[in-house]
Amino acid sequence: MNIDMINAAALRLAGHARRTPLLSSPFLDEIAGRRVFVKPECLQHTGSFKFRGGWSAVSALPADIRARGVIAFSSGNHAQGVALAAREHAIPAVIIMPADAPRMKIDNTRALGAEVVLYDRAGEDRDALGARLSAERGLTLIKPFDDPEVIAGQGTTGLEIAEDAAALGITNADVIVCCGGGGLTSGIALALESRAPGLRARPAEPEGFDDVARSLTSGRIERNARTSGSLCDAIITPQPGDLTFPILKRLCGPGLVVTEDEALHAMCLAFARLKIVVEPGGAVALAAALFRPDEVTGDAVIAVASGGNVDADVFTRALARFQI
Amino acid sequence: MNIDMINAAALRLAGHARRTPLLSSPFLDEIAGRRVFVKPECLQHTGSFKFRGGWSAVSALPADIRARGVIAFSSGNHAQGVALAAREHAIPAVIIMPADAPRMKIDNTRALGAEVVLYDRAGEDRDALGARLSAERGLTLIKPFDDPEVIAGQGTTGLEIAEDAAALGITNADVIVCCGGGGLTSGIALALESRAPGLRARPAEPEGFDDVARSLTSGRIERNARTSGSLCDAIITPQPGDLTFPILKRLCGPGLVVTEDEALHAMCLAFARLKIVVEPGGAVALAAALFRPDEVTGDAVIAVASGGNVDADVFTRALARFQI
Repeated sequence: MNIDMINAAALRLAGHARRTPLLSSPFLDEIAGRRVFVKPECLQHTGSFKFRGGWSAVSALPADIRARGVIAFSSGNHAQGVALAAREHAIPAVIIMPADAPRMKIDNTRALGAEVVLYDRAGEDRDALGARLSAERGLTLIKPFDDPEVIAGQGTTGLEIAEDAAALGITNADVIVCCGGGGLTSGIALALESRAPGLRARPAEPEGFDDVARSLTSGRIERNARTSGSLCDAIITPQPGDLTFPILKRLCGPGLVVTEDEALHAMCLAFARLKIVVEPGGAVALAAALFRPDEVTGDAVIAVASGGNVDADVFTRALARFQI
Repeated sequence: MNIDMINAAALRLAGHARRTPLLSSPFLDEIAGRRVFVKPECLQHTGSFKFRGGWSAVSALPADIRARGVIAFSSGNHAQGVALAAREHAIPAVIIMPADAPRMKIDNTRALGAEVVLYDRAGEDRDALGARLSAERGLTLIKPFDDPEVIAGQGTTGLEIAEDAAALGITNADVIVCCGGGGLTSGIALALESRAPGLRARPAEPEGFDDVARSLTSGRIERNARTSGSLCDAIITPQPGDLTFPILKRLCGPGLVVTEDEALHAMCLAFARLKIVVEPGGAVALAAALFRPDEVTGDAVIAVASGGNVDADVFTRALARFQI
């Protein structure tokens, strides 16, 4: 896992993934007490950075293997990213989703051309179901984060951050990344190590689901007590990955932890000041940039808004509460 | 007024205005029955394309004239665009706003460093007030649309559309533009004439405020019966400008007219499918692209989302109504 793989992924993604800009607002700078930039991956195809990793992994497969199709487990953003990447490669995609996943996410994944297979979280073994389908049809499993080509795809986000930061004259900044399994954070960290050594990647997580922050502190993989029950569902995973954690440990600064309320508040500020739609889990990094200024060490801060797939009712309830 | 002025404005704006991407969604393509691209100028500094024209006009002034400061009349987006352009040039800005303008827009304009002078719409003569202040302080008036350097600045949006359309292989498309006084539409039309002759600029307006569409039909400047009372307030003007109308007449296809409800619906679809925040007036072009497919002639359609300065309550009421 190295920068060459990220560069190769960037070549494969060129003309397919969207090149997202860096956004900013003087109003956010004032709250944070320093310059704040936001990388809006909510504007990426399918509404999250997951399309990058999905495309990278699908496009890296040998043509004959790829033609048989891919399979993924996901209740959300990874599902849609893989589904669209498969459709654009004109190959089949099977997405195994929990039957109680949000209806809209199931519908969207189907609308993107994937075959959605629902399973009962309580009574069925997801992994066994996936293994059977893979074997029967010769499908290749695309993991959500612990896969080198997925990490390489997410890392292209870091190449763009490095390029845009250089153009803005930013040479010393914290790059805060919403962190679940660590695919995006580790990919960005590798890209920055090579292209922008004055920029440090730092994971951000919601309170109660801070497995990565705790793992970085203890030096070994720690688990969350719970893996559900947060509005930040998009970035909730049991623990950092076996591939991602060594990269995080070697390259990333201390983790940042924010409350769910702070994430919702950041979501509302992104609405009012940046005119982007960010989901709660995707707003965790911006929340850390705005509300943990004493823990940020850079002259500037770059927060990745990792996704925007939020239901209208969650969004409107937050707007009513934090209206500015 | 020609392409050279737009090219010169682009050079002055480089590194200051934000380069906005083209966004798309297969879900929007399906509604429209053709490929739909959106140019999200809501992501521009100050939340609308107006920053381009403001920066262009301020930066084009001779240094000694500019140093004395600028003045503008506006209740909304032009106010903020000029205020930020002035602040970044370190010169004074006076913005004359109606006392009953939305509090948030007044606060934002002040927060961007401008001196806000409020007047009573009923009892005071806005133009006389502006003339007195200009004379006393030597301020230069920055008009909202009927000014060559303002049109040139807005036209840089068209240069970017031409460049991105070429990269996407789009050679035949309608470029639908939310149209008030015609500064943005005429600027884009001039840019496309020179850089992308297969792309046609077409103004879009809300029902009841379709002065430009009617003027294009009759061949002479027509007025609106009303100039207030629409949620699409950002693009409501009495009539096309003396400078903009001849350009619109020479270069633009027939105008498109949508209902306020269609604009609100398009605003909700932009939330759900593109993850951007668009104000009602800024959603008129996307509404035309989606809901007037029989009036669009191109293989593809590019809709400019001109601004995103919408109050949370208007936004949430629309989401509740059109929830998808």
